[in-house]
Order: sequence, then C-alpha cells, then structure tokens
Amino acid sequence: MLRMKWELLLLAIICWQRSHTDIAEPKQSLGHVTVVIVGATGDLARKYLWQGFFQLYADQVGKGHTFSFYGGGLSPDEKATPLLFGILKELACPPELSTERCALVKEQFLHLAQYRQLNTSEDYEKLSQHIRQQVEQEGMVEAGRLFYLSVPAFTYADIAEKINNTCRPAPDAWLRVVLEKPFGHDIGGAQFLAKQLSDKLKEEEMYRIDHYLGKQVVSKVLSFRKENKKLLDPIWNKHHIERIEIVLKETLDAKGRIQFYDQYGVIRDVLQNHLTEVMTLMLMNLPANLSNSAEILQNKLQFLASLQYIDKSNAVIGQYQAYNGEVQEELNKTKDFYSLTPTFAGVVIHVNNAKYDGIPIFMMSGKALDERVAYARVIFKCDTFCVQDSTDIQCKSKQITFYLGHGNLEYPAILVSKNLFKPDLASHDWKEVTENKDVNVLGLPLSDYYIQTPVVLREPYVELISQVLIGRKDSFISTEGLLASWAFWTPLLHSLAHVFPRLYPGGVANSNLLNFQLRGHQVSFSQEAVVNIIKSGTEENFQVMQGKFRSSEMVSAWSQELVERLASDLLMAAEEAIRQDGQFHLALSGGSSPVALLRTLALDLYTFPWSDTHIWQVDERCIPHTESGSNFRSIHNLLFQHIRIPYFNLHPMPVQLNQRLCVEEDGGPKLYQQEIKQFINASSFHYVLLGVGHDGHTASLYQDTKLDSDNERLVTLTESPIKPHQRMSLTFTAINKARRVGVLMMGKGKHELVSQLSRIKGESPKYPITKVQPNNGTLIWYIDYDALLG
Amino acid sequence: MLRMKWELLLLAIICWQRSHTDIAEPKQSLGHVTVVIVGATGDLARKYLWQGFFQLYADQVGKGHTFSFYGGGLSPDEKATPLLFGILKELACPPELSTERCALVKEQFLHLAQYRQLNTSEDYEKLSQHIRQQVEQEGMVEAGRLFYLSVPAFTYADIAEKINNTCRPAPDAWLRVVLEKPFGHDIGGAQFLAKQLSDKLKEEEMYRIDHYLGKQVVSKVLSFRKENKKLLDPIWNKHHIERIEIVLKETLDAKGRIQFYDQYGVIRDVLQNHLTEVMTLMLMNLPANLSNSAEILQNKLQFLASLQYIDKSNAVIGQYQAYNGEVQEELNKTKDFYSLTPTFAGVVIHVNNAKYDGIPIFMMSGKALDERVAYARVIFKCDTFCVQDSTDIQCKSKQITFYLGHGNLEYPAILVSKNLFKPDLASHDWKEVTENKDVNVLGLPLSDYYIQTPVVLREPYVELISQVLIGRKDSFISTEGLLASWAFWTPLLHSLAHVFPRLYPGGVANSNLLNFQLRGHQVSFSQEAVVNIIKSGTEENFQVMQGKFRSSEMVSAWSQELVERLASDLLMAAEEAIRQDGQFHLALSGGSSPVALLRTLALDLYTFPWSDTHIWQVDERCIPHTESGSNFRSIHNLLFQHIRIPYFNLHPMPVQLNQRLCVEEDGGPKLYQQEIKQFINASSFHYVLLGVGHDGHTASLYQDTKLDSDNERLVTLTESPIKPHQRMSLTFTAINKARRVGVLMMGKGKHELVSQLSRIKGESPKYPITKVQPNNGTLIWYIDYDALLG
Repeated sequence: MLRMKWELLLLAIICWQRSHTDIAEPKQSLGHVTVVIVGATGDLARKYLWQGFFQLYADQVGKGHTFSFYGGGLSPDEKATPLLFGILKELACPPELSTERCALVKEQFLHLAQYRQLNTSEDYEKLSQHIRQQVEQEGMVEAGRLFYLSVPAFTYADIAEKINNTCRPAPDAWLRVVLEKPFGHDIGGAQFLAKQLSDKLKEEEMYRIDHYLGKQVVSKVLSFRKENKKLLDPIWNKHHIERIEIVLKETLDAKGRIQFYDQYGVIRDVLQNHLTEVMTLMLMNLPANLSNSAEILQNKLQFLASLQYIDKSNAVIGQYQAYNGEVQEELNKTKDFYSLTPTFAGVVIHVNNAKYDGIPIFMMSGKALDERVAYARVIFKCDTFCVQDSTDIQCKSKQITFYLGHGNLEYPAILVSKNLFKPDLASHDWKEVTENKDVNVLGLPLSDYYIQTPVVLREPYVELISQVLIGRKDSFISTEGLLASWAFWTPLLHSLAHVFPRLYPGGVANSNLLNFQLRGHQVSFSQEAVVNIIKSGTEENFQVMQGKFRSSEMVSAWSQELVERLASDLLMAAEEAIRQDGQFHLALSGGSSPVALLRTLALDLYTFPWSDTHIWQVDERCIPHTESGSNFRSIHNLLFQHIRIPYFNLHPMPVQLNQRLCVEEDGGPKLYQQEIKQFINASSFHYVLLGVGHDGHTASLYQDTKLDSDNERLVTLTESPIKPHQRMSLTFTAINKARRVGVLMMGKGKHELVSQLSRIKGESPKYPITKVQPNNGTLIWYIDYDALLG
Repeated sequence: MLRMKWELLLLAIICWQRSHTDIAEPKQSLGHVTVVIVGATGDLARKYLWQGFFQLYADQVGKGHTFSFYGGGLSPDEKATPLLFGILKELACPPELSTERCALVKEQFLHLAQYRQLNTSEDYEKLSQHIRQQVEQEGMVEAGRLFYLSVPAFTYADIAEKINNTCRPAPDAWLRVVLEKPFGHDIGGAQFLAKQLSDKLKEEEMYRIDHYLGKQVVSKVLSFRKENKKLLDPIWNKHHIERIEIVLKETLDAKGRIQFYDQYGVIRDVLQNHLTEVMTLMLMNLPANLSNSAEILQNKLQFLASLQYIDKSNAVIGQYQAYNGEVQEELNKTKDFYSLTPTFAGVVIHVNNAKYDGIPIFMMSGKALDERVAYARVIFKCDTFCVQDSTDIQCKSKQITFYLGHGNLEYPAILVSKNLFKPDLASHDWKEVTENKDVNVLGLPLSDYYIQTPVVLREPYVELISQVLIGRKDSFISTEGLLASWAFWTPLLHSLAHVFPRLYPGGVANSNLLNFQLRGHQVSFSQEAVVNIIKSGTEENFQVMQGKFRSSEMVSAWSQELVERLASDLLMAAEEAIRQDGQFHLALSGGSSPVALLRTLALDLYTFPWSDTHIWQVDERCIPHTESGSNFRSIHNLLFQHIRIPYFNLHPMPVQLNQRLCVEEDGGPKLYQQEIKQFINASSFHYVLLGVGHDGHTASLYQDTKLDSDNERLVTLTESPIKPHQRMSLTFTAINKARRVGVLMMGKGKHELVSQLSRIKGESPKYPITKVQPNNGTLIWYIDYDALLG
C-alpha cells in the first residue's frame, strides 16, 4: 500500500516540476511489472544490474508502468537485506537527471526494492502469491514478470523449473527470463542446456544476454547499414572489400578468474559470442524491416549457416606465460600440470556465399596484450590508380570502422574514411564529431574520418534491460542462433583440443610474436617460434608414413595430413593425365570419407586444373540429385560451388529418368556406361576414389550384391542394407580398369575393419573391398593413424 | 677478296692477343651471313640499327660466321654512300672492348659495309647475284640472309615480294626478314597485312620486332619466374595478388611526330604491343622448356585468348592540351578541327581463368606526364594480421617489380620485397645489388628490396639483333600472337572511336586529374572533370528514353546504356520474384543479341541473386551442348563460368537423347515441358528474354513453323531456314504465359525491321515476333538508338 502511494506522490511532484518547463502528459496505466534479480548480491548485479534497473526505473517512471523490484538469493532475508541496501544506496544518478529529481527517484526506487530468499519451490510460490496479492490490493493489472538470472549456468534449469511451476504471472501477462552466458561449452552442451530450458520456458520467454549487443555501436550496425544502403551496396561485397577485422584486445590477464576461464578460454569466452555477433550484424542480409525481430533473427541464422567450416588449420592460439602458473595455483595443480587453454586466438573465417566469398575475416582476441581496444572494421581494396598525384585522397586507405571503445579514440564511434562517403545521420541519438585531435586511429589520422558517436553514452546493461522491457528479441541470442554459432565453432574447438598454444610474455614484450599470416584459407604465426617451452606431443608429429597394406602401397598419417597428402597425390595424377590425354577423369565416392578431402580440394589447392577435369560418380543413392542425401548434391555443395569447372565436365549418375528413380527399364546404368565409353579412353578412369563401409562394402557394392555374368558391364543397380536401399554403382569391372585407385579409411571406427582386412589374403566374399584389384593400375590405401592404430 | 683477307688478319691479331690470356679456340666455319638494312640512312638505323649490327659483329667475330653488311635505300649509291659512312664512322665502341681492339674491329666493319640502291626488282636481283658471287669466290658456304626493313609499313609487302622473287639465299641457307611496327591499325588491318606477307614469306622467315622484348628485364621475366618457381607458385595467383600494374610514363609529347602519332594514339602505340607483351610474359603459363620457342608462343596465345573482353567502360583516355594545336599545325588542319586521338590511356584488364580471375591489371601509359618511368609490378595482398607490432616487416607492402628504367631507380632491375623471399640468381649475366641510396622506389625505400640487375647493360636492338642471328623466334611477335593481341584490343579501340578524351595540361600540373578508379570491372576518372573544353556530342548523351512500340512499353538508349538498363530491370524482376516465390525463373535466348547483356550480368551486377535463379533456354540448336554453336554453351561461357549458380538451377534443353539429336521419338520437347511444369508455378516463367531475327523470327519460331493444334504444348521441334536446320524452341504458348517478356533489338541492321514492325498492327503471319502477346504479363521492347533511328 505504502509503496504505491509513494509512487503516486513522486509522480505528482515530477509532474508539478515538469509543468514549469513542458507539459505533463497523463499516461494510461500499462500495468505492473515485477523485476526479480536472482543472484541479487553477486558481482554482476552489484556492478551493472541494479544500476541498469535503476536507470530503467528513472526512464520509465511516469510513463505508465508501475514496478516492484526483488533481489533474490540463497541467503536468508535477514542476512542479505542489509547487503542489498548497501548496494542500492551506492547507485549513481543517471546523468540526465537533476540532483533533486535523482534523490526523489532513488528514494522511491529503494522503497520499491526488497530482498527475498529464493531457494525452494515454496520460496518462489510465496513470491508469486505476494506479487498477486499486491497487484490485487492496488487494483492494478499485472503486465509481466522479469526474472534476471545472475547465477551460475548449471542452476538455470532448476530455477527455470521453479519459475515455471510456481511463479508464472497472470495468464495475460508476460514472463521474461534473462540468462547470462556461458550457454554451453560446445554444440553438445549447448543443445543439452537448450533442451532443458525449452521444457520449462517458451522461446519467447528466454532472453539470453550477450552484452555486446547492448553496446551502442554494435546495436547501431544494422541501422547504419540501412541508412547508408545506397552508398554501401556497390562496395559492400567481395569485389571491393579487401578484408574484415573483428578485434578485442585486452591488457588484463585471467588471474583470479582461472576457475571459470580455464574451462573456456578465449574462443568460448569472446569469439563464439561477442565477436561472432558483431560479424553477423556486419554481414547478414539487411532485414526489410529493422524492427522486425523475427526477420532479423532469421537473417542471422542464414548468415551463420553460410560460414565456411573451420578447424585448427584456420586458427592460431597462444597463452600468456604466467597463465600456467596461475592455473597451478588457483586450481591446486602440481608443477608438471600444463593447461592448453588459449588466452589468445587469431582465426580467419570465410563466408560461403556469392557476395562475400573470398574475403578473409580476421577475428582476434587475447588477454595480456599491449593495449585495450575493441573494434570491427572493413578495409576496402585500393580501387584507384594514381597516375601522378599519390597524395590524392582517393589513393589513401579506405575503411569503415565500428569502434567499440578504448584505444586511441577512447569513445565508441563509427568511423568512415572521408574518401568513401559522408554517412547519413538519420537518428537523433547520434551526432557527428569534428575532432582535430592529433591522433592516429587504426592507421589513419583522425581527421581523415567522418566520425559519428552517440549523443549520450549508455552502459550495455542499461540498454539491454530496457530492450527486455519492450521485448526486442533481436537484441538477445535466440536458441537457434546460439546453436548455429556453436555448430560453427565446435569443430575448431574440438580440433584444437590437443594443440599447444604458443607462449607469449604478455604486454608490449609480445612484439610481433603473435602476428599471423594467411596462406590460402589457412593461417599460421608469421614468425617461427624461437623456443617452444612445452614439449610437443604425438599430435604435432606430422610425419607421413609409407608402407604396405594387403600387398599394395599404403600411406598413413594423422587425418589432416593424410587428406592433404591424398589431395596433393590427386593433383599430381591430374597434371600427369592432362599432359598425356588433355583431360583428367576422376570418379568420386559418396559417403562421409571424402568430405575433408573435397574441402581441401575446393579451398586449399588453388592450382588444381579443374577446367580439364571431369568428375564422375562411383555410386549414387536413388533419390533426386537435388535432395540432401544425394551424393551428387553433397559433392556439389562441398566442391562444385567453390571452383570453376565447366558444366559439361560434371557427370552425375542418371538415377532419375522419366520422372522416376532407378527403374530397370529406364536403362540408367546403360546410359552412364555409354557416357563413360564416349568420354574415356578404354573406359579407364584416371583415378577412382573409394571409401570402405564398416561392413567392408565399397562403392555401392555389398556382400550380397549379385553382379550379373556380363563382365563388361561398368554400371549397375544394387541394393544397400541401409536406407535408401536402391543404389547405382560402378562395378568392380569399371573400378579395376582404372589407372589409379585410392581407398580412404579414416577414424577409430574403422580400426577393427583395417585389422581384419590386413589378415585376409586375396579376395574374400565377405568383404567386397577385397575385390578391388586394378588390372593394370595402381592401388593405394590411405589409412589414418586412428584407423590403423585404433 | 680484300674483305675476307682483312677479316682473317684481324682474327689472327685477336688470337695472338688472346693467347696471352687464354687459349684461342679455333672455330669451324659456320658460313657467311649477309645483312641488309633497307632504310639504311633513316632515323632508326642511324640511332640503333647500325650500332646493333656493329655490336653483333664485334661479338661474333672469330666465332665462325663471316659477314657482309649492306645498307639499302631508294637513293642512288653516289648520294647515299657518303651519308652511310658518315653514320658508320660515328659508331660507339662496345664497352667490353679495349680501345685498340675496337679500332681494329671498327675498321674491319667499315670495310665489310657498303651502300646499295634497292628500288626495283632488278636492284634486288643484282644484290643477290653479288652475294652469290662473293660467297663462291671466297669458297664459303652461305649461312643466311638477314633483311632488316627499317621503312614505312606500307612498303613491306612490296619489298617482301621483291626479296621472295629475286633475292632468296641458297637453298640450304636461311632467310630472315625483320619488320618494325606498326603492324596494322586494328584486327582487320593486321589480318590484311599478315595475309599479304604470308604470300611471300614463311612464318619462320618473319621477325616482327617489339623492342620491349629486347629490354633485358623483359626478356628475363620468364626465367625469373622459372628460377623462383617454388617460391612463386603458392603466391602467384588470385588468392595472393591484389593487383598488377603495367606502366609506361613519358614526359615527352608527340610534337614533330603527329603525322604518325595522330593515326595511332597511345593504345596502338604502346598498350597493344609493348605493355601487352610484358603482361603476357608475367601471366602466361610457364613453358616446360624455356628454350622451346614454339611452346612459348603457344602459351602466349593461350594467355591472350583468356583475356576478358574490354570496351570503353574498361578504359579512361586523355589528351594533353597542346596536342590539338600540334595536330592543326602539323596536319594543316583548320582551327575548328578536333583530334580524338588519346595521348593517355588507363585500362583495367581481367584474365578469365581460374588462376588470375578477379585480379585487376592496371595498364597505363601517357605522354606529357610528370616523370619518365616504365615498370610492371605485382602487388600482393596484405596477408598478415599484425596483433601488436605493425612495424613487423611482414606487415609492410609486398611487391615484385620488373623495373624497366628511368624514374627514381634509373637503371633496369628486378625488385623483390624483402618480406617475400630472396630471389635466386641463377644466371651469370645478372648480379645482386646492395644499395643504400636513400631513395623511394614505388612506395618503398630501396633498402626494402632485393635488387637484381644485368651485369652489362645492353640496348634492346643489340639484344634483338643477336636473337635474329640465333633464330630465337620467341623474342619476336608471331603472326598468330599479333592477331590475338589485336583481337583483344580492337573492340576497345572501336568503342572509343567517338569518345572525347579528357584534356590535361601536361607535366606536374596534371596533378590528380588523370587518376582513375575501378568500380567492378569498369573504370572512370576519380575526379569529375572541372571543365570539359570540347563540347560533348550525341555519344555522350546517355539519356535513356521511354516510350511505346506496338502499343507496349519501349525503352531506348545507346546500346551500352540499353544493356545496362535491361540488366538492372532483370535484377529488379529477380528480386521481386524471389520475394514472392523464393525463386526466379528466367528463360534466355541464344543468338548474338544477349551477348552484351550476359557479359554485364556476369561481370557488373555483383548482387544478382544467382543462387535462387533458375536458367531455362528459349531455344537451342540440335547439336551437342559441348559444341561451339550451341546456345547453351555460349550462355555457359559468357555467364555460368563467371557466377556461382547451383548446377541444379541450370536447365539445358534436352536436344541430345539416346546419343542422337532431336529425334521425335526420344521426346525431348515433352521432357523439357515436364521439367518446366515440375519447377515453375503454372508454367509461367518470371522472365522470357527474346531476340528478333532479321526475318522477324523469335525464339526458333519461323514464318513457316507449323505449330500443331495442341495449344497447351510448351516446347516443340522446329526447322530453321539457316543451318543447323533443326531446333528446339519454346512455343508462343509458353512465351505468352510469362509474367514478363523482354524483346531486345540492337544495331543498325535491325532498323529496317523495326520500321516495318512499327507499321503493323496486331499479328502478322510474316513476322512471328508479332505473335508474342503475353496473356497476363508485360511485354517490354528494348531497342537501341541504332535499331530505332537507323
């Protein structure tokens, strides 16, 4: 009772004050909002959250909503209440309020806030009853309940369950639960957590915070792109962008936070979330409507899906030298313990679409570096030829920078090189700055930029808390978006699991030790390491081994090196074939084995003579080529979309004829056989690449496949024990005519089979792969260490 | 007689001299060589040729050949002999000879040289007899005759005929005729001249000089690439090269040479030959064998064939302000005469192959510029991310420069940035220079480069004359190579024929007036012209006109603007269709009309949503898709090779089934119709693009094409009056179902037809195009001014 009166009194005073300067607008009541901060006396709450809600209250007071604020926690009320009020008393006044008004608002805010123990289900139920009663008493309508979970992630599911069971608001009111990262450790963990939450909360009830989305410059990216669309459209593409850099440099180390940090490292802590969000906003398709959250989230997803696969070959990692000692100390480890957690990472990302294809995106973050700065910038190609006057402004570097703060500039801003264009200033919240400060920002003097900066600087949490209240879902991470980001980062994280980070001294002393370099799509440190303090393990033993397997040549190595070796052998075979015959005829298998190979062929082997290469299929499933299970489609997406190969050089198996699939009378195998005979001298492929199934099948030739008596038949229909059952396949006759046959076997799962095959001499009806015995050609086995050694 | 004795005496002296230092090697006689310079007292001969032959003689004396030298010309002997000896007496001593030896060699050379009038066939016959007699008298064998034609090009055919008829050497001896440019004015002229010459001389007898090929740095390009192949291979490609610049800047103007210059201009004078040769050497495939001239010439041809078509949109041109006055004076023109001959050109060239695709090659040359310098350089992309230390040498600019001379460096050299690699120095003719001169060469201090330079500097003519003697054809321009270069440059020259060059003051005052800028593949001057002194004519009137034609909408403009407008209309249609249906179904015609359009779509419209566009064919010839007359192949080469479009989105007409072409029973039209129905809602294409033949046919629907009664048939076989007769075509039913139909008519040749069509109301059986009347869609005519106005 008392509270509401206070609030009304305050409102009256403010209205009275306002009436002296502007007209007080009487607002219709928008209902009562309950805010509950769970973890109300923790670090984050103390530093940012209460300040954010205080600001929200100051902004909203008199605009129609009424509020009450609860701090929740595991401690009993009597212990935590004084703590909470200690925090609240220290709240700073928002700069736009006069001292007097602030004093009023703050006093009111203190009256509206109280601590409640939130531990058991009963606690939540009691809170709910309390809210209901209060709202009823005051004759208000409940607008919604906002829970801010500022607690460790492992407690989310439990708290969500309690809220769901006992603390939901009135039927027409909203429930919004704000969550803080980490949201998982990899795609598996994130999926598990998402599943747990989705049982209790609806998607529209979850607000996952990435505080970068609350940074004013970050939240301006899309509208900047939209406001300047006409000027950006012609240059915002691969033809004009030279590179993109997304950077967060810190001088701080991880000391005191090792417990958390050592489980995550810089990629999970910064790249997977903050920097990925910034990249997404810069490169996603612009939504038609900037206030359509659903469209924005949809376009974000689409962008994340277009990122090219990365693994350790696309990244460099480092660890500052003192880190390991801190780990030993804070985690109570012995002196021989080594943490592989990176505190520095440089990654190069490529987008797999026609607009941005080929642009390197350098993403970089690290602790214990020489300066604190965060920015994302687009550097444009020099498109000008300076015949004489190289001081012409058109000949200077051109860039657009989203400057998040610190560094030389010190305040957040959007910087556009003056030789690009003068950006539009559509919003009243932003202003143009003309500064003649003699300072160099990212390689150019400040005077070379048009500078835009927010009129009022606001903390990200203040921004985001106000976004929760108005329900702007696009300022938060959706479940789908979260999983898409993890899906992108997880392969890199897993492939780095056993990689030793380069040690760096920290600070200015790092000098050029961490500079890294792009070669194709791969990256490496520019300087050779002088001393490698941690001794390298087997993972760094990149030796390729050659030997014999089933009396044929065998190449063995760790998977990545094996694939690189196979790719380079294919290149040599191609060059030789083209020298001799003018063409290279390559037959590729479907299945999962060649995925890494196709990726390497597409992205790392620039010099492959695709225009003289014909691609054939070893086997195909009887489904349309456009469907996702089709081998042709998978080769298409992994390879053809990335290279320039003539249409006429692709030879998909004709599984679909007369609008039906693999019907005997349609004569698909015969057609393909004719095509082979027409194109290939003596029907002898230059190279046939095979995989082997766990059951020993190869191509689509199975243990019980009955090949008819016609030994000259090159293509046949077969039945697979696995769905879809119908297949088309080259026969052993066709395979054994080839000049070279490569068999690729990778992964621990194939170890058993490799052992068995090594024991069998000659053919065995149980293992169709044993029938691969080229008549005049060479057979080479490519077996990775996992498959070979188990 | 006397001569030979002199020569033997000299040989004896030299041998005697040598015996004091090294062992004289007695050489077997390699036979007698006769050198004839036709135009012996002209400018070129005076400046370079006699000096070159003197050097050749000094190099060769004592190495087995004997020589005689004839200066030929139209003047009678008594008049020209003293002139010639005046020239010969002034010859400079080669630097490697001692003063004494030079005096001896020079005296001998003077004895071996004589003037002969060469005017009539008889003159040539007499010369031939004279040579024969002399060789016989001395008991020598004739090795060959070298004719150097230093005369205007229009006399080549005549002289070649005389040589062929009356002055050929003994049967086993060689004939080599050296020709100086110009070799034509465009592809037509060059073909004519080549034909004329080929009637009289064999290809191996012609040595067309491009003196750039005699520059030591230019003739080193291939071997530099070969010697450093291992280091260059990973970076000499589109992934690493940012741009290439090929530049010849002159301070001189054309004064005094206008008679010649005004017919040619800078593109024909410098770009078509010198700079094209340099570009070719830099980017052609390396021959397996550097001394295999045939392989080198073959690879050059292959490279020239891979250049992307250019026209005026890919070039900027200028003319120094004083030029026009010089033209009026030297050509006796009135004060209102304006020459459009460019004295400056900047062109951007792209190579159409997988290795160099997308790299802009800036080619630039001009007179009356601020400095004299010539170079060709490869600038590499910055591939390094400098985390902290941006002074790391890896973060500096990386380039390889073939520096031809003048400018800041002053001597010819190959410069390699030290952060790339230290180049190999395989040859003894080149040395490494370490210079600490404080000078900036092309943006970097000299100390940042590894520098290689020839040990002895030689004049190009000296080099080339010695190449003629040893028959190194690859140092000269082959007929095929010449025509290939003209084939590339002619479309640009023709499209520039009526373009007004930008006027520039000359020298340092040009400032940034000539700087030019790339947007996509097009270029323009970076600065707007302040004053355009020559008033623009109709050619610059880029207005696009809209009106009505046959009661439908019509767009008209000059051809280039028309094509750009059509391309942008297609883009809008595509975006609309994809918004509505998720896909854009576009049917394209064959023939010549869409060539320019497809080029624009492929190269200039970056943002076209290809991944959601399906391409269908309006009509096709009954020949395999892989053959060059095939419409599908032509669309493939012009468009598909340049864009990223999924394989599944291409819908070639099935003209070949069961290994035969357009056989009724194979049901090709029915198959295509099924495909249309399967993919396209209501079989209604979003856009059908048509052309019109001179006879009024469209698609492959002719005046006497009988369409059967089935009005629902979408695809049919037809007969064309022109070979190949058999065609497959969409029917009017299919076309008229489309949502939009565009009809493109271009060129003066279509004017007559446009006039006739404009007079016919409704359908006319004589003109099948009149049956194009979309049921519910829109018809738009795109007619260029040539076709509209004649």
